[in-house]
Amino acid sequence: MADKIYRVNMKDLSYKIEEVPEEWMGLGGRGLTSTIIYEEVDPECHPLGPNNKMVFAPGLLSGTPAANSGRNSLGAKSPLTGGIKESNVGGTSAQIFAKLGVKALIIEGIPEDDSTFYHLHVTREKVEFEKVPELVGKNNFEVLDTMLEKYDKKVAVMTIGRPGEMRMPIANVSVKDPEGKFRSHGRGGLGAVMGSKKIKVITVDAEKYKETIIADSEKFKAANKVFAKSLLDHPVSGQALPAFGTDVLVNILNEAGGLPSRNFRSGNSENAEYISGETMAETIKSRNGKTTHGCHAGCIIQCSQVYNDKEGNYLTSGFEYETIWALGAHTGIKDLDMIAKMDALMDDIGIDSIETGITLGVAVDAGILEYGDGERAYELIKEVNNGTPIGRIIGGGTGNLGKLYGLTRVPVVKNQGIPAYEPRAVKGQGVSYATTPMGADHTTGYAVATNILRVGGYIDPLKKDGQLELSRNLQISTAFIDSTGMCIFVAFSVLDNPDTMPALVDMINARFDINLTGEDVMEFGKTILKREIEFNRKAGLNSAHDRLPEFMKYEPLPPHNVVWDFTNEELDSVLDF
Amino acid sequence: MADKIYRVNMKDLSYKIEEVPEEWMGLGGRGLTSTIIYEEVDPECHPLGPNNKMVFAPGLLSGTPAANSGRNSLGAKSPLTGGIKESNVGGTSAQIFAKLGVKALIIEGIPEDDSTFYHLHVTREKVEFEKVPELVGKNNFEVLDTMLEKYDKKVAVMTIGRPGEMRMPIANVSVKDPEGKFRSHGRGGLGAVMGSKKIKVITVDAEKYKETIIADSEKFKAANKVFAKSLLDHPVSGQALPAFGTDVLVNILNEAGGLPSRNFRSGNSENAEYISGETMAETIKSRNGKTTHGCHAGCIIQCSQVYNDKEGNYLTSGFEYETIWALGAHTGIKDLDMIAKMDALMDDIGIDSIETGITLGVAVDAGILEYGDGERAYELIKEVNNGTPIGRIIGGGTGNLGKLYGLTRVPVVKNQGIPAYEPRAVKGQGVSYATTPMGADHTTGYAVATNILRVGGYIDPLKKDGQLELSRNLQISTAFIDSTGMCIFVAFSVLDNPDTMPALVDMINARFDINLTGEDVMEFGKTILKREIEFNRKAGLNSAHDRLPEFMKYEPLPPHNVVWDFTNEELDSVLDF
Repeated sequence: MADKIYRVNMKDLSYKIEEVPEEWMGLGGRGLTSTIIYEEVDPECHPLGPNNKMVFAPGLLSGTPAANSGRNSLGAKSPLTGGIKESNVGGTSAQIFAKLGVKALIIEGIPEDDSTFYHLHVTREKVEFEKVPELVGKNNFEVLDTMLEKYDKKVAVMTIGRPGEMRMPIANVSVKDPEGKFRSHGRGGLGAVMGSKKIKVITVDAEKYKETIIADSEKFKAANKVFAKSLLDHPVSGQALPAFGTDVLVNILNEAGGLPSRNFRSGNSENAEYISGETMAETIKSRNGKTTHGCHAGCIIQCSQVYNDKEGNYLTSGFEYETIWALGAHTGIKDLDMIAKMDALMDDIGIDSIETGITLGVAVDAGILEYGDGERAYELIKEVNNGTPIGRIIGGGTGNLGKLYGLTRVPVVKNQGIPAYEPRAVKGQGVSYATTPMGADHTTGYAVATNILRVGGYIDPLKKDGQLELSRNLQISTAFIDSTGMCIFVAFSVLDNPDTMPALVDMINARFDINLTGEDVMEFGKTILKREIEFNRKAGLNSAHDRLPEFMKYEPLPPHNVVWDFTNEELDSVLDF
Repeated sequence: MADKIYRVNMKDLSYKIEEVPEEWMGLGGRGLTSTIIYEEVDPECHPLGPNNKMVFAPGLLSGTPAANSGRNSLGAKSPLTGGIKESNVGGTSAQIFAKLGVKALIIEGIPEDDSTFYHLHVTREKVEFEKVPELVGKNNFEVLDTMLEKYDKKVAVMTIGRPGEMRMPIANVSVKDPEGKFRSHGRGGLGAVMGSKKIKVITVDAEKYKETIIADSEKFKAANKVFAKSLLDHPVSGQALPAFGTDVLVNILNEAGGLPSRNFRSGNSENAEYISGETMAETIKSRNGKTTHGCHAGCIIQCSQVYNDKEGNYLTSGFEYETIWALGAHTGIKDLDMIAKMDALMDDIGIDSIETGITLGVAVDAGILEYGDGERAYELIKEVNNGTPIGRIIGGGTGNLGKLYGLTRVPVVKNQGIPAYEPRAVKGQGVSYATTPMGADHTTGYAVATNILRVGGYIDPLKKDGQLELSRNLQISTAFIDSTGMCIFVAFSVLDNPDTMPALVDMINARFDINLTGEDVMEFGKTILKREIEFNRKAGLNSAHDRLPEFMKYEPLPPHNVVWDFTNEELDSVLDF
């Protein structure tokens, strides 16, 4: 049976199951969410009003046995950036959507009866709506428990916590992972959009798995074998990430002078040793945790982990470099256990751990918090959950806090916080932060690979030469990869191994019986980016928004004493195709 | 002696007194501030960073005996709107600057030693800098007292309160009036810019008045006579405004269904009778206040007043319709004495009473405040002054509060609050709010005149016909009037009396020995608007920002049940010249 579009209208709690339009057939993940938002949403609409839409879409290869293909995309107009947003996630939702034949779930409108929140349950045949006043004010783990009592343990669950109900710009949409923990559609405040639609939780039926139809399964298997091997053979995805998780980057960036510290005042942190991937791995091992762990079934990289507390009890997982950087180096909290505790709390209340961490670091400049005070930072996250005035301030994200406190050193692009990689000292990454339509987002054009990790060659991170082209090519190929359901970490192998991308393309061709080429892939990426950029321009984000914060132009960054020195014309050329 | 440009650099506390460049000779007020900002300020700079500038400039006729010519302009990139800003004020500064021969005072940079705030004293010969740690944390009246002890009572004083020191987006720059009270450069958060430059107070020497040179004093006198008579002959500027102040508009707008009430949920307020100009005039008379009062020497309209408390003691003055509307109809506070008390407090702490009032009304929707609770509203203003978290939230202004609380009914354009006139029911005014480069600002193209007051003809406020042209012409002529030093209320006579504009132009011609024509005036206005619009576009405000809040498009406004129904193309045509 062919895939369908599931279209929900919250206004009158109705739904339609529609045929997939011809022109959406070859799209998935980000390609599909961005296309639907581009075609159907008025760019001038209020992100939290009735005319915004949420679009969930699994990648083109999600639901197949392709290695690392379990990412699900969520698109909407972002209440944080005011532009188009796509945020993808691991967990189980992509595979369940795909196996159920849901090409996309589009959610429109706002309930006429907005007196409470709703639970949506999606099956192959229908969408059920239920008022859930008993879940209002509950956080993610409690909501999950309730759903797991009601449904089979394999059910997909997407939920928001109290900050999402309160429509805070840092609220995320949390997604159940294979072990019943959470992964997040983290960035851009998409949890606030779900809150505005009065949806507390969405479940998707995993009972009646259908096998995803693969047109040429022999060809598919052969390509997947090449593809999977290439991931395991690569030193980053095959060795460093499984050994230390993404947190391996702390020491690497610190050595490169590109670890933003004390709100982007230095590229080195005195805390690196306390928060590094090496320290984390040792800690995990000493407490019988797990250093390798996948965020979705089919992941062979296993960069996640299970981090236990001192007593050996589960504390958190999906404990990422960017979160640890934000709380450890940027906000100055040395205690990795405290950071893990905050990570777990943020998972439970459903807020973006990157935006929250960046906001807390800037809150130090605002006088709200002492640098390094983990206890107070933890309390502030609780204040977010309680919706107190100071909680609302933190919950507004970095850019809004900067405005309220009249700060100039506010690390945001398009009002979204800049994570973990110093743009002045990792210039290719800075170009991506500035120019991506998504607002500062490290995954959209991960030039760290070539600037720092020497993947795909080497371009000196401190020099301008080659960075514009590097970022451009990465942004184009990432727009494609984000449409396949693949984890971004397949990019290392794509960059270094000439067999990886053809194998990825072969899997798509084998699944859909089509004949994509490498050139098609680049055109695909460009097409998606063009739609995103046009949406943004119509939403009010012109080229003046493709800039890094001004202070980076006049404040040299130790230890290399580099400034941000790209001209406007150079930046405007990056995605001008 | 010719006028000079006084250019201060706060970075090293230096100054230069420069000749006026040829191309600035014919400019004053807004025309000059906007031109200098346009020519000298990087539109992408952070408004609170070292690359923004503040420009004070008296109007072309300020300092002359021309009636109502005492308005001073302040320009900068606005921390509230992110675009160019001009805010003009009565008080004594325009005339003192003009008589001293200061064509413009430009303030650049941020002090290297930013450990405290500075006092700048401007004389004909020099600019003096003094650290004033003893004034830090003080509010306007205390600062004024200190200055009046030090200088002649006529000295011009421009100061910021604690919210300005704290760089809040609602902070204003307060200016001494002839009686030692305050008038405000209210809108756009320019007090935060002054705070960012670490300037607590600016004084301008009024000791050595020089007579402003008027090239042809006979011609000037004759023109001024015609001009002044036309103001007094007009029923609005000659009768309604002196009798009831600007607050005369409460009943007029309420009857028209255009008085925004309960955060723009109706065009009628149940509170109108308590807060009307008629009620105010009676109250003032019964307490031996003054119903007529000028905000600057030479004002013959006298729309200000002295409002006493129940005991007959001075409470406030410059008590304007927009403030009373914001607190009375929008926030629901019936008690005019309480509103007056809040007005006085806002004068003292130096915050924009319009933005603050609009923010408080929206704070009702956020659950921060009960509708009509004046005591709590008063406390919230004190919280602003104390910089507490809730104070910072209110101090961030309407748009920022709306973001933190996830609201969709947020009455702002370009992030600045929409005052006092319902755009859906006074459509010409709505066009001005949407399209002016200044953000929602009632003075930039006061279509209320023709829509409601039947000045300059009549255009039905509820219909679209003729509104685009009306707003365009008003915006062009206002850009000129704002450059002359004239109060905006000369516009009523300009619209109705064919002698008024020629008389105004004749005074300029007589002063400078030039030959401006009526056509030149329109070209002048267009030129200034074009510069402002180009600055804004480069600063990131494209046509998507020339829009009213989306809810006005789908939410019909009682009692006329009208929606906002201009197309984007129509709005984009208004200033497309």
